[in-house]
Amino acid sequence: MSFGARLERAFATTGQLCVGIDPHAGLLASWGLPDSAVGVRDFGLQVVEAAAGRAGIVKPQVAFFERHGSAGYAALEDVLAMARAAGLLVIADAKRGDVGSTVEAYGEAWLTPGSPLEADAMTVVAYQGLGSLDGVIERATRFEKGLFVLAATSNPEAAATQTARRTDGRFVAAAIVADVAGRNVAEASGALGSFGVVVGATIALADFGLSPASFTGMPILAPGFGHQGARIAQVPELFGPAAQNVLVSASRSILSAGSEGLIAAIDAHVNEVAACRG
Amino acid sequence: MSFGARLERAFATTGQLCVGIDPHAGLLASWGLPDSAVGVRDFGLQVVEAAAGRAGIVKPQVAFFERHGSAGYAALEDVLAMARAAGLLVIADAKRGDVGSTVEAYGEAWLTPGSPLEADAMTVVAYQGLGSLDGVIERATRFEKGLFVLAATSNPEAAATQTARRTDGRFVAAAIVADVAGRNVAEASGALGSFGVVVGATIALADFGLSPASFTGMPILAPGFGHQGARIAQVPELFGPAAQNVLVSASRSILSAGSEGLIAAIDAHVNEVAACRG
Repeated sequence: MSFGARLERAFATTGQLCVGIDPHAGLLASWGLPDSAVGVRDFGLQVVEAAAGRAGIVKPQVAFFERHGSAGYAALEDVLAMARAAGLLVIADAKRGDVGSTVEAYGEAWLTPGSPLEADAMTVVAYQGLGSLDGVIERATRFEKGLFVLAATSNPEAAATQTARRTDGRFVAAAIVADVAGRNVAEASGALGSFGVVVGATIALADFGLSPASFTGMPILAPGFGHQGARIAQVPELFGPAAQNVLVSASRSILSAGSEGLIAAIDAHVNEVAACRG
Repeated sequence: MSFGARLERAFATTGQLCVGIDPHAGLLASWGLPDSAVGVRDFGLQVVEAAAGRAGIVKPQVAFFERHGSAGYAALEDVLAMARAAGLLVIADAKRGDVGSTVEAYGEAWLTPGSPLEADAMTVVAYQGLGSLDGVIERATRFEKGLFVLAATSNPEAAATQTARRTDGRFVAAAIVADVAGRNVAEASGALGSFGVVVGATIALADFGLSPASFTGMPILAPGFGHQGARIAQVPELFGPAAQNVLVSASRSILSAGSEGLIAAIDAHVNEVAACRG
């Protein structure tokens, strides 16, 4: 079953919430955990345990594990494995990108069955062109994994690059979205593709040459809900008909509830996401 | 001593060659090493041993260690530590990028004294704008580390994005180079800054709105020599007066010499780089 089909199933059964796993130093301290590989492992496993059966998707932020070197990566391996064993779809938020055999190596690391870092999907960056990612796109296709390519992001410094005009007249962000759409193999009508994009939940799509129609059949990973200012209730307004493709990604607004408040925070977010589907 | 000053010293004593450490599956096989964490560690340590005293700079490609998960990262930690202990400047070719506390975490991982993954510099990506990298730029400044921001790359799929025009009229690649130049703190006349860019050695600078003058005082990490088609003898022609700032990065053309031929291949490359300085 393709990643897109598994995602569609998760949407249907547990909804569109994606729970971030971001064990940064401040959160570890407020959870009473050590700022160490042990701490990030414990943090990650607690989030997985709370999310399992309540939400369908988790997104570990790789940087917070990498901070602790190989020991942090060993912790991440445990978190990834436990999340997948619990039936959660796991998106490694790694934002990797390169060319040739190097980008293939990233695909081998994150998207290969049996790899210690195996996830269901990963985030990638196409500063070197979407074609630079061919090696990881092919691997994702072969192993029924997913990819989310950074397209239009919310941070204010991003717009100058992402709204630049290519010589073919397209905005950089819009060209990435269109090119990703082209990589989604035609599937049964109504099915989600396995290749999606990352789009900030506080941007104005039109500023980037985008509209809801740009995302037909494509999953949209939208970070920025809660802490970064986007409200979940605005999803239909922000994304229009593409709202049904959105992974509503929330991290700090859930994680700041602390270890004891985690389940309630996830439930509240799940309900809020479901409510805006009407 | 700043990274730029250490780089200038390396240029003066051992020249401008940067030896890639790219233990991909094909090279491991041809070296008779297992495709495992043990293999990449052995490969990396052999390159470090051969480069020490002959070249000044090494560049491990992180993806090939990440392929082996936390065990591969433990191998990378050994390679980084041994390289730094041998007096080599180490550039972690990680091409990381993100925003806020996430990009800070990457800086903590790679550019913090005492971190298990400590390097002297790392490569980063600014698809979200150079300002998105503030967290890692500040850390590099504080700990006298370096950064190389991906600017204009050689792969054919890259040009459409990197030559796109921003609303301020600048090409995406040229704006990154100019903005990086702006981050190089004014230092003693003639000194190299600590913030550089990655520029492919087979591009035409003008296609990206660049000229040798764009790189005044800025180190240029130029991959693509040897295997990817650029010839070392062309460095002065390609980069003009900025040739003196170029890290001539060669991987496969050195590493394909195999374990036994490694020292001779490094010496030959060092001599070739020195020859084109006249």
